[in-house]
Amino acid sequence: MGKTIGVIIDFLNDDFRSRIDAAAARYGYKTRYYPDSASAVGNVDDCEILYGHCSQKVIASAGSLKWFCCCWAGVDPFCKDELYQNPDCLLTNSSGAYGVTIAEHLIMTALMLLRRQMEYTEVIRAHEWRVLPGGIRSLYGSRITVLGAGDIGTEFARRARAFRPAKLIGVRRSARSGDGAFDEMRTTAELDSLLPETDLLVMALPNTPDTVNILDKRRMALLPEGALVINVGRGTAVDQDALIAALDSGHLGGAALDVVVPEPLPADHPLREAKNLLLTPHVAGNMTLAYTREKDVEMFLEDLESYVAGKPLKHLVDRKKGY
Amino acid sequence: MGKTIGVIIDFLNDDFRSRIDAAAARYGYKTRYYPDSASAVGNVDDCEILYGHCSQKVIASAGSLKWFCCCWAGVDPFCKDELYQNPDCLLTNSSGAYGVTIAEHLIMTALMLLRRQMEYTEVIRAHEWRVLPGGIRSLYGSRITVLGAGDIGTEFARRARAFRPAKLIGVRRSARSGDGAFDEMRTTAELDSLLPETDLLVMALPNTPDTVNILDKRRMALLPEGALVINVGRGTAVDQDALIAALDSGHLGGAALDVVVPEPLPADHPLREAKNLLLTPHVAGNMTLAYTREKDVEMFLEDLESYVAGKPLKHLVDRKKGY
Repeated sequence: MGKTIGVIIDFLNDDFRSRIDAAAARYGYKTRYYPDSASAVGNVDDCEILYGHCSQKVIASAGSLKWFCCCWAGVDPFCKDELYQNPDCLLTNSSGAYGVTIAEHLIMTALMLLRRQMEYTEVIRAHEWRVLPGGIRSLYGSRITVLGAGDIGTEFARRARAFRPAKLIGVRRSARSGDGAFDEMRTTAELDSLLPETDLLVMALPNTPDTVNILDKRRMALLPEGALVINVGRGTAVDQDALIAALDSGHLGGAALDVVVPEPLPADHPLREAKNLLLTPHVAGNMTLAYTREKDVEMFLEDLESYVAGKPLKHLVDRKKGY
Repeated sequence: MGKTIGVIIDFLNDDFRSRIDAAAARYGYKTRYYPDSASAVGNVDDCEILYGHCSQKVIASAGSLKWFCCCWAGVDPFCKDELYQNPDCLLTNSSGAYGVTIAEHLIMTALMLLRRQMEYTEVIRAHEWRVLPGGIRSLYGSRITVLGAGDIGTEFARRARAFRPAKLIGVRRSARSGDGAFDEMRTTAELDSLLPETDLLVMALPNTPDTVNILDKRRMALLPEGALVINVGRGTAVDQDALIAALDSGHLGGAALDVVVPEPLPADHPLREAKNLLLTPHVAGNMTLAYTREKDVEMFLEDLESYVAGKPLKHLVDRKKGY
């Protein structure tokens, strides 16, 4: 019964493999690589550590598991105690690997909504060449509120700042001073008073009981006419029926959702017909970005060093809180 | 024969009108407003100053014209001496009003190309929900070259900087130190040596004899496989046939053109079928953006004050150079 690290990452390459092998050997571990979750289920019983993206079944079948390093940022499916044979199993996530790519997604979709790019795509698709009546808008001078000011929200704010918004406010569950990326940091308790002064609401929240339906019909009504909403956290944070109604009535000027309920989104789901809604198929944190993959492996190796030394893990998740 | 300022701007509102009227009265001018070029032709003979966007015919019919303040940034149609009855007529442009909005267009289109947003639009349009095979890319770590480092190029660089590119180089006709927005400033003479190290080429050049076809087939071949090109200056700067070939062959990974030859682009033009080409109908500098309109009027009023005082105009165009 050796000490084994099981690795299930679909972005494995020779460089990553040799770095993981070298670190494992240094600390007296063997490594075993699985191409996917299906091949791992039932074959991970000797793994003390699992690293990668895998199904709940893999975790449930890992009898010797002491640490699961999940390479997603949102780990809500892995926060249930009953999943683990060992109640003290550690869970870490990859918050920190996704900030750069999701921030770029956020800036792109914000500009697409402000500049009516979905309508201009239709103009070109119709083989036309004309300027649409009515205006376009700008990040310049916009009032931006970022709900969920963690790694993703902060990386977004650093980029949004360069566009000279009128205001850039970060909102967290508990008060905590910002790192300068935001003009102000506020708490979720103050959200209702912030919404009427928000032109662009960016949502990057984990899925927890507190965040489910946090943007409901009542709060959408608090946003000013024409406001824009972008969600890259979890689909559960938005009341989708209320969103469709607010878009179709014109109260909201547009929205961009990278996360929805359910995923995959059915072909005939009413969200697909909502007005001025930019849908993307959960690709904001696309793991195909070289930076994200590189950062993810780095973060695992960093925590592996701490784990072996008995030090606290940097990316540890509080399973009770869900992040 | 009074001193008259003729104004032909389609974004006129009460505020702009009262500010222009007040300034004119202060300097002893009357104002006259025309809804469009058609109504101005033949009716501008007493105008000492014209401000706005109008046809060449209007300028040619203005016998007393001493200053034309054009509210476009690209004024190549107004650089011909034969257009003016008064050979010393001054020409100013609105370079400086468009930087903010065009920079936002540039960041948006760069991210859309890097993140394969045109393909993801098709995934959603097909009522699907899936991640495309192959990767996406990032502004993070990209090598960016900005050809034409004036107001627009500089405003772009200030925003691109926040995305942490590997390199951000500005290229101008003549060497001039940058303002810190760029890592380095180079001259057009060095362009060929820069292209092989360029992942994203941004073009924001005026239409002059020097810039026609500046991105030709030979220079496209100097760009590395998969490089991206965005043009917001004038369509004449790009050899369109060579671009179509470079896109279809896959040598270029994508391109975004807001300016083309001719405009409007015919419905059956081959550009419309080119692979990975993001077309927009000359809207990057969309005058419907409040900031652009505001800035434009401000710039006119600023130069009006200088004009009356006999001081040099800040936005004066050298008609020989074309900008």
